[in-house]
Amino acid sequence: MVIIEEIAALKTLLQAKRRMGQTIGLVPTMGYLHEGHLSLVDHAKAHADVIVMSIFVNPLQFGPNEDFERYPRDVKRDTALAERAGVDVLFMPSIREMYPQQQWVTVAVTGMSDVLCGKSRPGHFDGVATVVMKLLNIVRPDSAYFGQKDAQQVAIIRQMAVDLNLDVEIVACPIVREPSGLAMSSRNVYLSDAEREAATVLHTSLQRAALLVNAGEKDISRILSQVTEMIQAQPRAQIDYVEVVDAATLQPVEVVAQTSLLALAVYFGKTRLIDNCRLEPSEKE
Amino acid sequence: MVIIEEIAALKTLLQAKRRMGQTIGLVPTMGYLHEGHLSLVDHAKAHADVIVMSIFVNPLQFGPNEDFERYPRDVKRDTALAERAGVDVLFMPSIREMYPQQQWVTVAVTGMSDVLCGKSRPGHFDGVATVVMKLLNIVRPDSAYFGQKDAQQVAIIRQMAVDLNLDVEIVACPIVREPSGLAMSSRNVYLSDAEREAATVLHTSLQRAALLVNAGEKDISRILSQVTEMIQAQPRAQIDYVEVVDAATLQPVEVVAQTSLLALAVYFGKTRLIDNCRLEPSEKE
Repeated sequence: MVIIEEIAALKTLLQAKRRMGQTIGLVPTMGYLHEGHLSLVDHAKAHADVIVMSIFVNPLQFGPNEDFERYPRDVKRDTALAERAGVDVLFMPSIREMYPQQQWVTVAVTGMSDVLCGKSRPGHFDGVATVVMKLLNIVRPDSAYFGQKDAQQVAIIRQMAVDLNLDVEIVACPIVREPSGLAMSSRNVYLSDAEREAATVLHTSLQRAALLVNAGEKDISRILSQVTEMIQAQPRAQIDYVEVVDAATLQPVEVVAQTSLLALAVYFGKTRLIDNCRLEPSEKE
Repeated sequence: MVIIEEIAALKTLLQAKRRMGQTIGLVPTMGYLHEGHLSLVDHAKAHADVIVMSIFVNPLQFGPNEDFERYPRDVKRDTALAERAGVDVLFMPSIREMYPQQQWVTVAVTGMSDVLCGKSRPGHFDGVATVVMKLLNIVRPDSAYFGQKDAQQVAIIRQMAVDLNLDVEIVACPIVREPSGLAMSSRNVYLSDAEREAATVLHTSLQRAALLVNAGEKDISRILSQVTEMIQAQPRAQIDYVEVVDAATLQPVEVVAQTSLLALAVYFGKTRLIDNCRLEPSEKE
């Protein structure tokens, strides 16, 4: 595995790979790698010849009162995990390398960014879209791999590729969960034991919704009230949002359809966790 | 010359050219071609093997009360002129081809877009940056050619390339003028004979500023007041702005420096014309 910190060096290396006819897969991360990230590498390896993983905690996507400073970092462990997973090129730029000066021009997301997580994190998805655009332009991959846990992020990046005519396949990979059902997240490290136990309610509530839909329920308000009640019954949980939206456009829907996404964000103590699942309408009728 | 209206067909054609090792130069225009546009083709031909010209009147960069509907169009004449100039591929997409659906994700320009023309045309440069980003991603040229008449546009596109890590050389080409000194513009067709005559004051006033600077004047307020007075003496002229800014960042400057740009926008009747020149500090001291 090659470790590269400079954009120019990365471009030179990848241009050589490209000239040899090799395809490139990009796995963008903020590091503190877990099984979820490593599954992205597995998916990438199934499709591309050269796997580039980026590790960059992107200041642009953190709000002023968010956890940029304390976001967990462990370069040594990440490096070992990436190498073991089969990453070929680990790109770890400094903030100065990615943002050498004032950023006058950015990517802006409207409509899809002021719903779900965007409501409580203004500017977050503009920051995500901007850094992903930069990474895509630097790496110029054939395909890029994102975790479905960040459903809104995937939907926005997909839309960015369509709207700005990017020549890259955006691949969403399934959520990886701990045995308890808790979705893997770098932020899980913030949780106390009691909070980690309490947070399993998220997956349980998503499963409940799936059962309801499977039993023929199509009314979204009834599904939402059951999910909400279940989470509220857990005293350590503080709901940010529970919503059902169209998976592609993230706009609210009222009846379960082929493209519905149930998404939620819930605080456990100071830690905000997200999770989601697709709602597949029952075939019974 | 090949005329192409569909993105997919253009990409296929250019991929073949690229595989043959040919370099691509892009000349993006809104059509109604004049000598200024054709000079961009000349510059492109000096550097690139395959010259792609796009003609697309981009609705995204026109304000609600601007001249999108009446913007001059003449496809037949443009086609003949492009072919004669040596364009290899003329890309003329429909609005539906460029914007098949709602545009959720765009390029946003801050700081550089709310000065000069941006003051009276809110959203204009976001629209310009977005369509240029789309064209750059569709064509993937080695170099792209813009007229220096639209100084703010060039500065913003250059900054977009830097900030979003685009792999393209942005080339600014000198302003082409009519014998009277009037800068070539598709909008000149709107002018009455009297307005066209009156509009020559723009170039004359820029020349006056250059003479002052050449004579050692460094104080920008004194330069601006002379230029302003000269234009105001022309009864058909209504000043939108006359400013001196840094040519790269477009931020106001107070003393003439190596990178100063004198830029102005002036109405003649309902027609808004722009012009500009670099101010080169005198070497006398």
